[in-house]
Amino acid sequence: MIISTDRRKRPSDFRLERAEVVRDDYCPFCAGREELTPPEVFAYRPNGAAANAPGWDLRVVPNKFPALQVEGGLDREGEGMFDRMNGIGAHEVVIETPDHHKTLATMTETEIGRVLSAFRERVRDLKQDRRFRYIVLFKNHGGPAGATLEHPHSQLIALPIVPDFVREEIDGARRHFSDKERCVFCDLLRQELAARRRIILEETEMVALAPYAARFPFETWIMPRRHECRFEDAAPHEYDSLARLLKALLGRVNRALESPPYNLIIHTSPFSEETTDVYHWHVELMPRLTNVAGFEWGTGFYINPTSPEEAAKVLREAKV
Amino acid sequence: MIISTDRRKRPSDFRLERAEVVRDDYCPFCAGREELTPPEVFAYRPNGAAANAPGWDLRVVPNKFPALQVEGGLDREGEGMFDRMNGIGAHEVVIETPDHHKTLATMTETEIGRVLSAFRERVRDLKQDRRFRYIVLFKNHGGPAGATLEHPHSQLIALPIVPDFVREEIDGARRHFSDKERCVFCDLLRQELAARRRIILEETEMVALAPYAARFPFETWIMPRRHECRFEDAAPHEYDSLARLLKALLGRVNRALESPPYNLIIHTSPFSEETTDVYHWHVELMPRLTNVAGFEWGTGFYINPTSPEEAAKVLREAKV
Repeated sequence: MIISTDRRKRPSDFRLERAEVVRDDYCPFCAGREELTPPEVFAYRPNGAAANAPGWDLRVVPNKFPALQVEGGLDREGEGMFDRMNGIGAHEVVIETPDHHKTLATMTETEIGRVLSAFRERVRDLKQDRRFRYIVLFKNHGGPAGATLEHPHSQLIALPIVPDFVREEIDGARRHFSDKERCVFCDLLRQELAARRRIILEETEMVALAPYAARFPFETWIMPRRHECRFEDAAPHEYDSLARLLKALLGRVNRALESPPYNLIIHTSPFSEETTDVYHWHVELMPRLTNVAGFEWGTGFYINPTSPEEAAKVLREAKV
Repeated sequence: MIISTDRRKRPSDFRLERAEVVRDDYCPFCAGREELTPPEVFAYRPNGAAANAPGWDLRVVPNKFPALQVEGGLDREGEGMFDRMNGIGAHEVVIETPDHHKTLATMTETEIGRVLSAFRERVRDLKQDRRFRYIVLFKNHGGPAGATLEHPHSQLIALPIVPDFVREEIDGARRHFSDKERCVFCDLLRQELAARRRIILEETEMVALAPYAARFPFETWIMPRRHECRFEDAAPHEYDSLARLLKALLGRVNRALESPPYNLIIHTSPFSEETTDVYHWHVELMPRLTNVAGFEWGTGFYINPTSPEEAAKVLREAKV
């Protein structure tokens, strides 16, 4: 884990985190308040407006309270029986729209596509940095999902290590491939499309399904039909299809589950290893419906009160 | 993970979980409402009162909405590329006191000791059942930590498998032992007691410390000084020492962090394997201070804003 001293807090500071998310009066992500964020590293400005001024459709800025520092070396060392290294990485925020009151579900497909394109551009840029081995692309929507600002935004964190769950997922995929010479995700998609019981929505290039071993109620995976290990190497029409599917899916989730908080995570290949045949990028959506997370944290053992078949049925039948 | 069909919920049921915990007016755990729980499987009744009637100091009852069913066989089978088995297990609730308004921090040491004894008795009973390989002993305190009832209680879940995080912890301990022929937890305790920077509190038989690689702010481990792999094989004076330490520690946590919600988990050896020299039972306390859990769920990668040295210092210096 990362001990983030820049985010170091006094005990009383945690009280704030239990409070509500920041409303629009002082929102640092709204147009006209560009000086409240660090200078932008990327933006879509249709009319060529100046950087860090209004006139943008989307901005990417460094996180003001980054979990990791972008400057410096890793400086791996031992401390007695422990191992440590510096918390080097990049932590950026994608401000998805100037409009404070939109959400990913109410944005247009073009706007959602713009978010995906921005992710792609940032990944392509950051993977040039040889210190980084992985980039986590994610969105926390709503306070209970970890969002502290209401304004629509997502985040990316470039890491000098591959996170544990990604490691396990890739190792599992690698074992499947070495047994069968087939991608485990392609196999899964084929089986689910034949069985249909856990399919939620289909798009030209994408399929949304409730995974067989869903850890959370209404957990949903979005998988590209075409085998490809890296998110940033998807084709333009695949991003378009993903944007359409995300909009349709979130509309149904909001309808069926009363606009829940959620986490959205893009799973993609690490930079540092050859996974071309083995891995298959995809998106995981986890509505935050239950609080029964106490012992799950401690055991890695999940109790899911809703079967994936039931979850898929509810979302398939949700009227939008 | 477990798909718990007995807990199966309609989408609208999740709304309730976002609401407050149950208050005392209808509390099924209060004395005089014994008929609202399933019949007790264990109790401390100082004056020999009848079962399932008032007059108890502590009751253990099956969870009314169990995550697992205690009757039946495991029936392992394949379903296409997936593997499944029946959700066999025991899910019990320890009602720690008849007094709705106490907490583990305000109970007497005798009362806390009674909770630990009840855990021990239930583990010794349930490990007779050869279907079970592990028992998770845990407490969720406060709504954000997953508690749905306010009345002081903890839980145990007996499982037919060893949960992932326990598996990894034991595998790590086993590697350390096979390298060095020493328990990794004994080594850690020795190093921490020498360095002192992360020590929070010491008791005759127990030590509370902030772990070097703390995942959460103010995460605390309580370790017995004496090497022993199983919680249920601790000695009576060790339980007494743990009760004293828990009371002192929670008093400081409540003082320093404004009575936060928390999860408490006892880590002990699986039944099914020889871990005598390798593993070391201990208790993990995780105050739930931050909501920044979005991408942690998806990556197994934690960002902790408070260094363990700072956390230990704050709790050492908290005035009770």
